[in-house]
Amino acid sequence: MRILGIDPGYAIVGFGILDAQRGRARLVRCGAITTPAGVAMPLRLLQIQEDMETLIREFSPDAMAIEELFFNTNVTTAIGVAQARGVILATAARLGVSIYEYTPSQVKIAVVGYGKAEKRQVMEMTKGILGLSAVPKPDDAADAVAIALCHARSRTSLLYGAER
Amino acid sequence: MRILGIDPGYAIVGFGILDAQRGRARLVRCGAITTPAGVAMPLRLLQIQEDMETLIREFSPDAMAIEELFFNTNVTTAIGVAQARGVILATAARLGVSIYEYTPSQVKIAVVGYGKAEKRQVMEMTKGILGLSAVPKPDDAADAVAIALCHARSRTSLLYGAER
Repeated sequence: MRILGIDPGYAIVGFGILDAQRGRARLVRCGAITTPAGVAMPLRLLQIQEDMETLIREFSPDAMAIEELFFNTNVTTAIGVAQARGVILATAARLGVSIYEYTPSQVKIAVVGYGKAEKRQVMEMTKGILGLSAVPKPDDAADAVAIALCHARSRTSLLYGAER
Repeated sequence: MRILGIDPGYAIVGFGILDAQRGRARLVRCGAITTPAGVAMPLRLLQIQEDMETLIREFSPDAMAIEELFFNTNVTTAIGVAQARGVILATAARLGVSIYEYTPSQVKIAVVGYGKAEKRQVMEMTKGILGLSAVPKPDDAADAVAIALCHARSRTSLLYGAER
């Protein structure tokens, strides 16, 4: 099965695409959708919608894995991230992709085996498990690959099951 | 000019459509888009996207007026509302509708003349100014009409200027 991992944001959306079967996973592609800071928020959200649609149509994932949102101290950033996440969820649902969501702790347990692992440990383990020569860049892409890997190893936490 | 006021939410999106010219405003339509509680969030967001698109295509508003989001104590609700708001903003931008956003205080000043007015005062003034026989139902629709009226009376706070 092909898994699209997503690290949501309004300035940067990290993505990582894995092919997983019989306990093995292979990195197909990873990267980031970026939107310019000087542009009005509705246009940035529209660009995320359009780029997500292009990505899903090009790679035809069976499932999307995305992080659950938690709010930190920066409320303005949090609102923006949640707005972008809403656009991403609606786009995946429209294109018939099942959606799974995981907490940061679930990702750490699935990848490192320890729910309070450091971010750097998650990245190094992701690199090792997938046999990559380096940790993916930018960090948002590496986080997205880790979320996809979490789904490849657990396949729980269904948020939306698409019929197609 | 035709103004579409929006009170965003993921369970209920209030809307109110006004025609405004030469200092006078007339209510064209108001109501609410509702999504069922038992349905997965991505599908609720997709329904909001589709219903917003239908509404905009049917009434061809020149501008959308929407409330700025502030976070209260219920973080889970706040994430859901922000996700729905993101979908609404992207849909309006895609269909070429300019978007203005107002704080609750700006709406109160524009409608009642006092930034700390009670919600009920805003509703009664909205009813009086538009010559309605009753306050619109549900409350989400009444709030949306008040936001549209705020824009009819102030026309500031541009978030996104569509070119068309």
